[in-house]
Amino acid sequence: MTVQEASERARLLAELDVRNIIHPHTTIGAPAEPLIIERAEGAVLWDDTGKSYVDGTCGLWQCPVGHGRAELAAAAAEQIGRLEFYSSFGDYANEPSILLADRLLRLAPPGLRKVFFTNGGSEGNETAIKLARLAWYNAGKPDRNVILARTGGYHGMGGGSLAATGIDALHEGFGPLLSGVEFVGKPHGLEHGDDATCILVAELEQRIAEIGPERIAAFVAEPVLGVGGMVPPPPGYWPRVQEVLRRHGILLIVDEIVTAFGRIGHWFASEHYGIEPDMIVTAKGISSGYIPMGAVLVGERVLRLADGAAFRHGFTYNGHPVGAAVALANIDILEREGLLDRAKEVGAAIRAGLEPLAELEHVREVRGVGLMLGVELDRDAASVQAGARRDGLIVRAAGTNIIISPPLVISDEQARTLVRVVREHVTAAGSRPAP
Amino acid sequence: MTVQEASERARLLAELDVRNIIHPHTTIGAPAEPLIIERAEGAVLWDDTGKSYVDGTCGLWQCPVGHGRAELAAAAAEQIGRLEFYSSFGDYANEPSILLADRLLRLAPPGLRKVFFTNGGSEGNETAIKLARLAWYNAGKPDRNVILARTGGYHGMGGGSLAATGIDALHEGFGPLLSGVEFVGKPHGLEHGDDATCILVAELEQRIAEIGPERIAAFVAEPVLGVGGMVPPPPGYWPRVQEVLRRHGILLIVDEIVTAFGRIGHWFASEHYGIEPDMIVTAKGISSGYIPMGAVLVGERVLRLADGAAFRHGFTYNGHPVGAAVALANIDILEREGLLDRAKEVGAAIRAGLEPLAELEHVREVRGVGLMLGVELDRDAASVQAGARRDGLIVRAAGTNIIISPPLVISDEQARTLVRVVREHVTAAGSRPAP
Repeated sequence: MTVQEASERARLLAELDVRNIIHPHTTIGAPAEPLIIERAEGAVLWDDTGKSYVDGTCGLWQCPVGHGRAELAAAAAEQIGRLEFYSSFGDYANEPSILLADRLLRLAPPGLRKVFFTNGGSEGNETAIKLARLAWYNAGKPDRNVILARTGGYHGMGGGSLAATGIDALHEGFGPLLSGVEFVGKPHGLEHGDDATCILVAELEQRIAEIGPERIAAFVAEPVLGVGGMVPPPPGYWPRVQEVLRRHGILLIVDEIVTAFGRIGHWFASEHYGIEPDMIVTAKGISSGYIPMGAVLVGERVLRLADGAAFRHGFTYNGHPVGAAVALANIDILEREGLLDRAKEVGAAIRAGLEPLAELEHVREVRGVGLMLGVELDRDAASVQAGARRDGLIVRAAGTNIIISPPLVISDEQARTLVRVVREHVTAAGSRPAP
Repeated sequence: MTVQEASERARLLAELDVRNIIHPHTTIGAPAEPLIIERAEGAVLWDDTGKSYVDGTCGLWQCPVGHGRAELAAAAAEQIGRLEFYSSFGDYANEPSILLADRLLRLAPPGLRKVFFTNGGSEGNETAIKLARLAWYNAGKPDRNVILARTGGYHGMGGGSLAATGIDALHEGFGPLLSGVEFVGKPHGLEHGDDATCILVAELEQRIAEIGPERIAAFVAEPVLGVGGMVPPPPGYWPRVQEVLRRHGILLIVDEIVTAFGRIGHWFASEHYGIEPDMIVTAKGISSGYIPMGAVLVGERVLRLADGAAFRHGFTYNGHPVGAAVALANIDILEREGLLDRAKEVGAAIRAGLEPLAELEHVREVRGVGLMLGVELDRDAASVQAGARRDGLIVRAAGTNIIISPPLVISDEQARTLVRVVREHVTAAGSRPAP
């Protein structure tokens, strides 16, 4: 293609996009001019004009091994050549999903015994919510069906997973969702200072008493808030929360859609925080997003309560052989290249590079763990996203938060670019009027 | 591998499957011995012992172009090599999804204007339900949020899509789902004879009057019941239902997850039945299941009502470039090989071959359209599934129904095998005691 042909093609694609597609999180009838990503490798993206960007968000956190892995293309093509897909309902099975389940259970925290496959995070939380309720129903407690979730939590976009999502704007206009979800407050130290854990645990105890522990099936939570702003829990939060839940017999569903597969330097963040989950929901990093894939890991207690129950549930692409084959190859890469340790190292370096921003008056907090990093402003962060993009860096503004979560393969030099560009645009945001 | 090594490997895989995996629609704690599908081509499957089967169900209807298409493996690998995935949230876009949206809108019934991508059918119905409600909310009618669905309908397994599914057993034990779903009766001529359409339309009018049309956001329905038993509507059903819905201003969501992409000889079944949908939900056949993919097509009326609304919704893998690239290649194959016509021809031949079964006392009905065929017994159909499998044919028993929906590439000879084996085992089922 000549330069002119390429530019004509880019114009045409943009026109078609605007005319035909409703993108997630946009306004109906007011489509934005698209940024068409054409090609990607490692932690770098190129748009259709040839401009390059350091990928500071990993898309939607889905890509720990980075973009453009020929090994994963080969794994997908080879599996398609043999068996592209067959149902896993009932007694139908396939080899890649069997091998993946075995691999996942070896990597998972102790006590997790079985795998139920999905195609993504929302499906995983729908599954975990249904299975938690079914477990109690089967154990003779059909009224034990309340799901306890947290303000600031994000669990997906389906009728159940959205019901458990504690971000009000995401509910607006969608009417009544899955009933029986209750909330406790956002687990964020910034709002409570040094007493945060005590205050949050006391609030949890109180909410449980109000609802009645005998009505609560499960507590669902991310180890570190993701969409809610990359917020690690206050110190000592998880052991104390876990103790309360155990005492009341409430199942613990840990949503590790964002945190698993190396994002914070472990296979599962539960390990880092000493959590012993009754279920783990995972997706994204499991296949680095090359093929949609997800899994729910199910623990002993759930299996005991649900023993003998008919689990009449399952999405078409359950145990997809191509997704499973790619996930196995993806886990190979994470292991072989030592990417979990890399997340800790480069995460610490980026964090240290951003730390000075905390001294600016309009910056409320610089925080994070591993390669889940956030900068919270006292004002909307959209200008930082836009400015960084102009300068060849993708980061994500979520309200007042800047979300940073590059692929684990980001190089030292790319990490320095990321730090420099974020610092520049966060600093510049201070010269806009305060909110 | 020697024969002995192969058999040892098969034993090991089966053992791992039983130990580690919860398959959809099984009993917790009582895993079945798996049937491990190893390889597939066209309409034939091979298990890990080398036994072959004619694929009479297409897995879960997902595979119109048949298994083992090298062209789709190449499309997937090529796209992974260029851009495996990047988010489509907000203004991010990619070329394959732009081209696919354009292609879908050209194939779709008139009046459908925009595409919202998903990864499967459940996500599609969650999306359509949310968008229908948002449209009315945006138009100043937040209480117009009831979803009207049908007994026997199947729309998925999430909190919203399951709420709209009219099969009681699928709800058991899962507690209260998305609120605001109401039902009308199963659209099945068998139960009402020649007056079926009149009776069903009268019932629809009555239910609408009881609920109040001003409270009903949308009616959601499959053109032909799928999981509910491969049940085409009684003659004249769709135009009359559509007239009632229009008169009351109720949006029509047509669930074409099973019926689109040639299954009944058209790109969309809506064409065949003269339906003008406000939204079409599709998945499965769009990519022949090689990569999970789905789309919701959105019509003018929804866009008008929702104009200016923030659609804060979207699943991670929205607009997946690999799924879109494979879907484009899949549509190419359907076109190039004339598979829509093939579905009509071979469907008619299979239907004619099965028709004599209707004379047996224990057979209630032989029915279907295109390559969606069903045989309903007066007793459980499990023995037909089991017997056919022994004889090298996969069909699916859903309660008293036998579900038949092979890939559109099934050969004449394979179709004859299918007819012969189904006839044999349906006939044999008559010698078991009547229910």
